[in-house]
Amino acid sequence: MPLPALKHAQITIVGTGLMGASLALALRGSVGALFGVDSDPETCTFVEPFFDAVSGELGPLAARADAVILAVPVRSIVRLIERLGPALRPGALVFDLGSVKAPIIAAMDGLPPDIRALGGHPMCGSERSGPSAAVGALYQGVTFALCRSSRTDDDALTFARTLIEGIGAHPLLLDAAAHDRAVAAVSHLPYMVSALLVAAAAEIAGGDSAPWQLAASGFRDTSRLAGSDLTMMTDILVANREAVLAALDAYAGQAAQLRALLASGDEAGLRALLDMARTVRTRWAESRE
Amino acid sequence: MPLPALKHAQITIVGTGLMGASLALALRGSVGALFGVDSDPETCTFVEPFFDAVSGELGPLAARADAVILAVPVRSIVRLIERLGPALRPGALVFDLGSVKAPIIAAMDGLPPDIRALGGHPMCGSERSGPSAAVGALYQGVTFALCRSSRTDDDALTFARTLIEGIGAHPLLLDAAAHDRAVAAVSHLPYMVSALLVAAAAEIAGGDSAPWQLAASGFRDTSRLAGSDLTMMTDILVANREAVLAALDAYAGQAAQLRALLASGDEAGLRALLDMARTVRTRWAESRE
Repeated sequence: MPLPALKHAQITIVGTGLMGASLALALRGSVGALFGVDSDPETCTFVEPFFDAVSGELGPLAARADAVILAVPVRSIVRLIERLGPALRPGALVFDLGSVKAPIIAAMDGLPPDIRALGGHPMCGSERSGPSAAVGALYQGVTFALCRSSRTDDDALTFARTLIEGIGAHPLLLDAAAHDRAVAAVSHLPYMVSALLVAAAAEIAGGDSAPWQLAASGFRDTSRLAGSDLTMMTDILVANREAVLAALDAYAGQAAQLRALLASGDEAGLRALLDMARTVRTRWAESRE
Repeated sequence: MPLPALKHAQITIVGTGLMGASLALALRGSVGALFGVDSDPETCTFVEPFFDAVSGELGPLAARADAVILAVPVRSIVRLIERLGPALRPGALVFDLGSVKAPIIAAMDGLPPDIRALGGHPMCGSERSGPSAAVGALYQGVTFALCRSSRTDDDALTFARTLIEGIGAHPLLLDAAAHDRAVAAVSHLPYMVSALLVAAAAEIAGGDSAPWQLAASGFRDTSRLAGSDLTMMTDILVANREAVLAALDAYAGQAAQLRALLASGDEAGLRALLDMARTVRTRWAESRE
């Protein structure tokens, strides 16, 4: 059974926090119907105007969907997929926005054979969370990773690509394990680095207020991610544990090298390490312009 | 000999990069005369419109100054102070914008007894550098640390405070050693953390382009400082070596703790560490609003 065109599709978004509610705002008016599911009654009330129907109960709205998009924390996505199969129409697509793909793809592989499934991960977010932070432009210009499961066919890929391009993002198909290693380095590590910076600064400051008065824009930007949603981030780190530990180890190795160069007074070596980082960072930033 | 009021003072800024040129733009029109000194001829040409006179030679413009403001890297400031004394008018004020204060205050203590001196450090900057990045608003709303030397009198403090408030910044008087420990934690550590993040991501990415395509706003902000001026930052780390090593060690301790919590699956402990960082960061950010 083919999937309908996006503009006729009935789409159910499960989880209407920052990501799910922003997706609803971005899709409004360009799909057949938009349903929202959230376990929190207050959230349901808040997002009611974003959807054609909202419910705290997954079953009925999953049954009406051509595509179900899971926008909850990674391990909740895995648990949902494990019990979602029987609730779905034959041919329906299960899609998700989870930040770690291997466990989700593994769960998708266990769906009934007549269900389509494809992993997704939009590279956007905010240190703010919840539907009150939602904006339709959240997905504009961002890279949107796609990872195949054994339930992915051309129809599923075409549907997801149309949706992604429709909200202004750029699809990038890649292997789930490669995705998870990459985001450990460029997304999960930045979060940890940011939180650790705050923890170290707090340890050094003790009860002294001067460091906090002196902290300025450099500290602000480098520590921004430390304010991210705790439940989401803890879930991500645990779900991507192996790749995250490897990223932490690579980071600790670089830090030990910098410390040794500074302690031994090897200024040329210190400068070379910092120069490499500066060059890589500048090249990356320029490639984004 | 008292210092003149700011509006009548002749001020010589030594070093007309981002900080010095921005200070000139911020002071223009509200002082008696503004002179610029820079060892780079191209820079001198570029900043000519910012000053009443510009020269590559320090001596003549230092001799005309009521206040000389040193806006070069930290160790260059120390070297300049060591040879500046004889060039100055009796009663003149030596002031600086250096990011590490103890070595500068020690050098100031060696100035002739008839010279005033006071250490300064405005908590602003940019990952861009040079006079082409200069903006008069750079100092607006920022904390401007002040550290006494044995050559600091009330006249020097009053003059500096008037200048700082005139450019929209907030003076904060503190001890040089306390300053250096604090900025190691909230300024020098963020820079290193940012550079190390880029180095670790590059190590993990190897030749693969996917991580760089997936890197988004979180990576962008956390790695921003890695693009900072190399000469300035290397100089700062070396000049503040003891406090910087202590900050790196505090950071490594926090990182080892996070790694152990994640490796052992202690999710409650992991969440507690991240929660502490989130709380501290949120409280700090709110205190800034």
